Amino acid sequence: MKKASSKAREAASARLKAYKKGVDPKALIKGILNGDTGSLSQAITLVESTLEEDSALGTEIVEACLKQAVPGIRIGITGVPGVGKSTFIEALGLQLIREGKRVAVLAVDPSSSLSRGSILGDKTRMQYLSRAPEAFIRPSPAGDSLGGVARKTRESITLCEAAGYDVILVETVGVGQSEVAVHGMVDFFLLLKIAGAGDELQGIKRGIMEMADAVIINKADGPNLPAAKQAQATFTRALHLYPPKENGWIPKVLLCSSTEGTGISEIWDLIGTYTESARSNGSFEKRRTGQNLHWLRQRIEYLLTTGFYRDPTIKRAYAQMERRVMEQKMSPFRAASELLRLYRARHEGQ
Amino acid sequence: MKKASSKAREAASARLKAYKKGVDPKALIKGILNGDTGSLSQAITLVESTLEEDSALGTEIVEACLKQAVPGIRIGITGVPGVGKSTFIEALGLQLIREGKRVAVLAVDPSSSLSRGSILGDKTRMQYLSRAPEAFIRPSPAGDSLGGVARKTRESITLCEAAGYDVILVETVGVGQSEVAVHGMVDFFLLLKIAGAGDELQGIKRGIMEMADAVIINKADGPNLPAAKQAQATFTRALHLYPPKENGWIPKVLLCSSTEGTGISEIWDLIGTYTESARSNGSFEKRRTGQNLHWLRQRIEYLLTTGFYRDPTIKRAYAQMERRVMEQKMSPFRAASELLRLYRARHEGQ
Repeated sequence: MKKASSKAREAASARLKAYKKGVDPKALIKGILNGDTGSLSQAITLVESTLEEDSALGTEIVEACLKQAVPGIRIGITGVPGVGKSTFIEALGLQLIREGKRVAVLAVDPSSSLSRGSILGDKTRMQYLSRAPEAFIRPSPAGDSLGGVARKTRESITLCEAAGYDVILVETVGVGQSEVAVHGMVDFFLLLKIAGAGDELQGIKRGIMEMADAVIINKADGPNLPAAKQAQATFTRALHLYPPKENGWIPKVLLCSSTEGTGISEIWDLIGTYTESARSNGSFEKRRTGQNLHWLRQRIEYLLTTGFYRDPTIKRAYAQMERRVMEQKMSPFRAASELLRLYRARHEGQ
Repeated sequence: MKKASSKAREAASARLKAYKKGVDPKALIKGILNGDTGSLSQAITLVESTLEEDSALGTEIVEACLKQAVPGIRIGITGVPGVGKSTFIEALGLQLIREGKRVAVLAVDPSSSLSRGSILGDKTRMQYLSRAPEAFIRPSPAGDSLGGVARKTRESITLCEAAGYDVILVETVGVGQSEVAVHGMVDFFLLLKIAGAGDELQGIKRGIMEMADAVIINKADGPNLPAAKQAQATFTRALHLYPPKENGWIPKVLLCSSTEGTGISEIWDLIGTYTESARSNGSFEKRRTGQNLHWLRQRIEYLLTTGFYRDPTIKRAYAQMERRVMEQKMSPFRAASELLRLYRARHEGQ
């Protein structure tokens, strides 16, 4: 922890370094509010950065943007690899643009279709959407830890909203823990499925089914159509087995073909129906308030732990303790107590 | 945060309160090391308690026990409600006792079969195991938050090991996030399944399948046997679709009938085969070291956050900020920064 007086010094030094690197937070904020995607990208990079000076700048930018951001509709999209998330997001995004919306697409998992696309240099992924001036597409940084990325996605949503995007699509891959995190920051949660054999093996987690506000059977076209209709019936029955959601919403199962473009506008209509009914019965605001309280606690824990791990004395002591734990010379439980004692003594001694 | 000098005062005052309540940590530690189950129970209650004075005592006891504890074999057992976890654990526990082991059973989730049994006062659950002097059974406290209980289970394992239990069975219900936590503290992870219709609906999460070191098809008896054998083949194939585990172990699928007692000794043999091979190739120790480093980080985060939330000034300020966030007068992001600023200023000002 730094002294209160050193807080300003720290911010100033971060700003100085940023100027040297060519990053001007004021200019970035202005750029974002003007809808400049370059500024938006750069700001998200700062927010995602684990470097202390970057995240200090990121905080400054997020705080400024929060004052201006008009909340959009936030939609989580999940599904295991192979269900066609990229083509679905492209089809939905283009539909929204036709309706006059501006659309931002964020990916949470390093293994998401967006990120894999960027790793492989696969330019065919979302080729139309990525060229549309009304769209902003941001893959998650490859190789970053899942927890780390998901933790910053909430801030990235804010930056996109400040840049004037009306609809924020957040993609996740449906196999990890990121779904819970994403469900905790969106207004509507879509689960993508495909019909067909081996369904049990590629089975979506039970918990994810329970989070879904709608299940979309994708690739419902050509010879797949009968199986897709059957899957629709199966999922509809399955969803009825779950206890009703607190807000009274009964999740729907819709068919779509991202390649043929069928069913896409129905999905957007469904989301519209949902938000209208949720807004009128108060559950929309209630969900957002709950999410905000969760964000508060999560941000506090983030600030507490990064403050600890960034302390230079702790860094050295932690490396020592880690070695002693690995050599079984000290229990992790004891090592944690010792480190906390050191941390507290240090800050009270100053 | 407290001053270093107040640390001793705090411990002394916790001890004083405990004496008043009739809790003597020294006596509890001695009792645990002598294998007294009453002391063990009371110590676990202190460790699980969210009261500051209780957890200070709990820390003292855990630290003392860690010096004496001989690590046992830790086995995680998961499966959705209805697969027969209670009868399976009873059958496995009795088998282990016959082989001369002392067995502790801990439940992580408030909705586990153990806890539901205790809530319902259902004395038939594990009736033989619960009467065996070589067994210790501990349901998780009903109504407690999942995260809270799972966080303390690692400490409870240590207390059981200090009390001389050779095998620790940790039960979880296979529908929440607790499996990841339990997987992070056991040597072997068992997934219980039953064969039969509706399998996809009660489908185990994909992530859990990937964590399993063995899948047990329970209730493989009488008319269920053919379906159980078919499920065995299906799961064996399914497990082969996953990438091999880092330690080279290929998860096995075994049949068992907890009521008839068939297949139980084979499961214990399998665990023996696993631990032997994992010990000889070093992966056993490697897994434990990884778990210890995880425990270290988790404990640090626990101490940091409880120190924050227990601070009286923060308690008041947090309630105010929470209200402002709920009334949308302040963003959670900003509120977190303000609270951290207050917390830091407070401890540096002292």
